[in-house]
Amino acid sequence: MEIFERSLEENIEIIHQLLAHNRMTRFRTEFLALHNYDRAQIFAALEVDDRNKIYQYLSPTELADIFDMLENEDDSVIGYFDEMSNSYAASLLGAMYSDNAVDVLNSLKNRNQVNIYLHLMPVESAREISKLMSYMEETAGAIMTSEFISIPENITLGDAYRKVRKQAAEAETIYYVYVVDEEGRLTGVLSLRDLIVNEEDKQVKDFMNNRVITVQVNDNQEEVAQMVQDYDLLALPVVGFDQVLLGLITVDDIMDVIREEADSDYSGLAAVDVSEQHLSPFSAAKSRLPWLITLLFLGMGTSTVISQYQDVIASASILSAFVTLITGTAGNAGTQSLAVAVRKLTNKSEEDDFTSSLSFELLTGAITGLVVGLAVMVIVLVWQHNLFLGAIIGFAMMMAIIVANLAGSLIPKLMDRIGFDPAVASGPFISTLSDLTSVFIYFSIASFFLNLIQ
Amino acid sequence: MEIFERSLEENIEIIHQLLAHNRMTRFRTEFLALHNYDRAQIFAALEVDDRNKIYQYLSPTELADIFDMLENEDDSVIGYFDEMSNSYAASLLGAMYSDNAVDVLNSLKNRNQVNIYLHLMPVESAREISKLMSYMEETAGAIMTSEFISIPENITLGDAYRKVRKQAAEAETIYYVYVVDEEGRLTGVLSLRDLIVNEEDKQVKDFMNNRVITVQVNDNQEEVAQMVQDYDLLALPVVGFDQVLLGLITVDDIMDVIREEADSDYSGLAAVDVSEQHLSPFSAAKSRLPWLITLLFLGMGTSTVISQYQDVIASASILSAFVTLITGTAGNAGTQSLAVAVRKLTNKSEEDDFTSSLSFELLTGAITGLVVGLAVMVIVLVWQHNLFLGAIIGFAMMMAIIVANLAGSLIPKLMDRIGFDPAVASGPFISTLSDLTSVFIYFSIASFFLNLIQ
Repeated sequence: MEIFERSLEENIEIIHQLLAHNRMTRFRTEFLALHNYDRAQIFAALEVDDRNKIYQYLSPTELADIFDMLENEDDSVIGYFDEMSNSYAASLLGAMYSDNAVDVLNSLKNRNQVNIYLHLMPVESAREISKLMSYMEETAGAIMTSEFISIPENITLGDAYRKVRKQAAEAETIYYVYVVDEEGRLTGVLSLRDLIVNEEDKQVKDFMNNRVITVQVNDNQEEVAQMVQDYDLLALPVVGFDQVLLGLITVDDIMDVIREEADSDYSGLAAVDVSEQHLSPFSAAKSRLPWLITLLFLGMGTSTVISQYQDVIASASILSAFVTLITGTAGNAGTQSLAVAVRKLTNKSEEDDFTSSLSFELLTGAITGLVVGLAVMVIVLVWQHNLFLGAIIGFAMMMAIIVANLAGSLIPKLMDRIGFDPAVASGPFISTLSDLTSVFIYFSIASFFLNLIQ
Repeated sequence: MEIFERSLEENIEIIHQLLAHNRMTRFRTEFLALHNYDRAQIFAALEVDDRNKIYQYLSPTELADIFDMLENEDDSVIGYFDEMSNSYAASLLGAMYSDNAVDVLNSLKNRNQVNIYLHLMPVESAREISKLMSYMEETAGAIMTSEFISIPENITLGDAYRKVRKQAAEAETIYYVYVVDEEGRLTGVLSLRDLIVNEEDKQVKDFMNNRVITVQVNDNQEEVAQMVQDYDLLALPVVGFDQVLLGLITVDDIMDVIREEADSDYSGLAAVDVSEQHLSPFSAAKSRLPWLITLLFLGMGTSTVISQYQDVIASASILSAFVTLITGTAGNAGTQSLAVAVRKLTNKSEEDDFTSSLSFELLTGAITGLVVGLAVMVIVLVWQHNLFLGAIIGFAMMMAIIVANLAGSLIPKLMDRIGFDPAVASGPFISTLSDLTSVFIYFSIASFFLNLIQ
């Protein structure tokens, strides 16, 4: 009984040695005995000379299992295709699950190359793949696969079972079996569990579930992911507008969607793409500069406002000590409010009544602002022994927090209404904007009260 | 052919009417025909009088399907258990999948109540559930279930298939079948696909995959989720230190883990828990205040620093115009750097060499700081027609960004090393901290150069 006796590094070395010494038979024995994920990891770790031998030693169908596993980071997978002959590459794409082949072809910059591959692969595969490539990004159509099992409804469970056995090698999942009519329209679904637990001679139409949970080809991938989670499905059928069954989305692809969407929200909040891998500080800096420079210009607006109040500062320079306290705290409140609002929008759990959520945020900001404002007033009183100053700072703080809270919750909602991804309203954008409003509020209040006492 | 003819609201009304008029048989027919998720949604929407009738009309086993689906938001599920008799509740818990029963029991504040339920349910269930309850939160042991199918290795595929048919009703998943020895140690795995595609008379031990991918009971749930994703599994077996098979984690629970972890990271970045539902502005404000007040004190440190430089500001009040520009921009850079660092740590994709990642972040900050510093210098030159001032602001900006970048990347790494969750180092914390360092850097540089020209 051997369970994972060797480490990944040991396996890589062994495979490398076998390839270097042209030990084709031994390589095939060792390599094909490994789990598919380990094969993929080894493949990704080898050099080009070793890979060229693999293209000789393994058929496109055998290599397809590995390529179905590979992540296309930094276009590494595209690079592998460049190493192969066109016909081998086309066969490989035809043998892969169609959703993965579509991902590869969609990443190729050279459209001529795409056409060459489509012409060289089996006609049936080319037809399926072309169809899938036509769907808009991040919709159900773009992430579905065509390899599902469908059966007519007027057969027995035993016949259905035998059909599943026959098609099991090509289908991406055999655990759900879809029932279609002569036009290909989806009429019901059976799980493999249903098939094997019940008597062979029973009719499919008596056991199938005709309340099938489906998505449309143009449904957003995030809604699709939510549905798979809600219904605890292993796969979700995709239909066209006429209920014709077009494809299938499996739970492993859904998990990738969930991760993508989570990375996207997270990146939005921080104003930087956290899913990008950067090999040099130059490219890392390059990815961060756009937002930094953009917000620099917005920040200059704040500097302009402050410079208008230079006389106020000159006459009571203690005021400048609290500028960052107010902008910073209001910025923090705005970020909190933004995060909650964006998460609510991406969950789309209920249709929010705009007015009621507006008053909710207003009240939340008022309560938060009041508490923090009072705390600041007490701190300033203790530190500067000046109640009047404390009241000014506290009041300005409260107003700044209320405005920042509103901005943090309204801006993503407005963006969502006009069609933008609310997650683009980043934390840094909201806090830079709230710097502007906070400073304006602060100095207006301060100069108002200073004029009062003069 | 009827596919979802009625909406959820219609279904709720129909079920409510049937219950109100004590139509037990009709209720059972209508209700049990619906998909489990829809049944759960309807159940959650009913009032207590209707629910009390459901406890009379459905057996604990039938209700278990629904309870296996319910999300325990706001302890609503605990509330339902309070409505039932102790023996009904205990039977219900025994009939639910053990991981879900464990979730419920772990949320009960009253430990006596937990013991009452454990005593009233079937002994076997009580034993399984008690065992699972002993595992630490957020480990594989805490999220696994005991309902898996195991077979010995010296039987035929046909016998194995028949065993699966028999156990199919209780097992949470039948799509993987685990092979164990006499001591219960995991020796191999077969997929249901393997079972049905091959000849009946073949031996299990010849077809099983003896390189089983497993996790240990005390492995962190995030690592478990990553493994399920990497290997495209539908379920992952959990073993003890002696390789004895203890439980199973299914992909639907993994998707919940992925969402939890994503919410947790997102919440960390914004210093507010986005997964909490707040029914009143008071509770919403209450959840945001802890961080705001804490950071208020940190922000006072910054105010203290600025107040030390009041004479500098008094002599050149234009300097105060740029305080928020520098703190804001450095804060944005720090937030970007934090987000990237936290994401790298949670992925744990490679073991980062501390020194090399330190120099990477230093260089990234230097490049970013240089570009932004130059941009600021030009802007100030154009605005204030003062190259000297521009050079001061630009230089201070560059240094502030470098420090903020370092803080944003080092602090989560240090927290991770001393055992804290790096995601606790929130965006607001890093930007408030960078306010302090930025202000200190700015005024030190400004007063140094001012002294030079005097």
